Amino acid sequence: MAGQIESIQRMVSELSRLPGIGQKTAQRLAYHIVSMPLDDVRSLATAIWQGRKTIRYCSVCGNYATEELCDVCKDQERHNGQICVVRDPRDVAAMERMHDYHGLYHVLHGTLSPMDGVGPDDIRIKELMTRLTDGSVTEVILATNPDVEGEATATYIARMIKPMGIRVTRIAHGVPVGSDLEYADEVTLSIALEGRREM
Amino acid sequence: MAGQIESIQRMVSELSRLPGIGQKTAQRLAYHIVSMPLDDVRSLATAIWQGRKTIRYCSVCGNYATEELCDVCKDQERHNGQICVVRDPRDVAAMERMHDYHGLYHVLHGTLSPMDGVGPDDIRIKELMTRLTDGSVTEVILATNPDVEGEATATYIARMIKPMGIRVTRIAHGVPVGSDLEYADEVTLSIALEGRREM
Repeated sequence: MAGQIESIQRMVSELSRLPGIGQKTAQRLAYHIVSMPLDDVRSLATAIWQGRKTIRYCSVCGNYATEELCDVCKDQERHNGQICVVRDPRDVAAMERMHDYHGLYHVLHGTLSPMDGVGPDDIRIKELMTRLTDGSVTEVILATNPDVEGEATATYIARMIKPMGIRVTRIAHGVPVGSDLEYADEVTLSIALEGRREM
Repeated sequence: MAGQIESIQRMVSELSRLPGIGQKTAQRLAYHIVSMPLDDVRSLATAIWQGRKTIRYCSVCGNYATEELCDVCKDQERHNGQICVVRDPRDVAAMERMHDYHGLYHVLHGTLSPMDGVGPDDIRIKELMTRLTDGSVTEVILATNPDVEGEATATYIARMIKPMGIRVTRIAHGVPVGSDLEYADEVTLSIALEGRREM
């Protein structure tokens, strides 16, 4: 396009490949970046590149790490009797934000989805089983998402672990705290009703 | 925050400094970037940095350029009798997208705004006047935005140029083509009515 410099165009096209960033937003961002001080743009580009480059997966739990082990697995204070199983590393971050869980994690990097050809060997279930063999783990908390794939994955893993005599739990699903009952969807409401407890 | 790696945190904080990108969006983007192939992230970071680094301002018109002159000023095919005055380089890109204007530009890099302490010496008005001295320019089209500052700037420049015997025009403002009259704001409607023409 005349009037638009190639290097800006390239920036727009790279930015617009990010999720939730359309052509217009990418253009707005690119023009903003072009008007930013050189040093600020250097920080931004470096943060993006370094942020990606330094990341690897923890060899034990599969969480994001910068070394062999992630911060959680390295932490001697964590209770190694509990393992919370999640779909991906950002779920670990969500759990950690709560500051209430002090056990370890296991990141599956996916959920079972026969429709998409994702079977038990495609996610880190075998690695989880290996972690359970030394007898130190007493509870596995299944925190996969409350959707079809997440439920199927939780059920599958529960069936594999129970024979080992390890306690298997599933995080509760129901109406979110602070939300309005009238806005809850039917499935959530039905699960909330089914999971009701004595008061 | 435990569970979130410092380099990811830095990425989130850099991304959230961009306009229209809040903490949540920055986090979503950062996690996406971390899961992208290394090569794609390198392209993204490079495009951002190169896009900024290669940009300078055209020494004649103030538009974005990668060399001494911008693409428009370099182009021998452009009519050098017309200069379209805009606030900033992205307005040049907007005009160029239309493919209907074949003259030159002058980018003010701002508009007069006494309230914010922006006077005539703070924007590129002097440079515009210098361009008009050689007699080649026969029309100056004022395309600053139809807001208070844009109008004031257009009026100010028009008063300076008219005594030189150069034609000064202002782009038309009115109801946007293809839009619904009922959604037009009062000011636009009033300007559209005022600017009505015989059919």
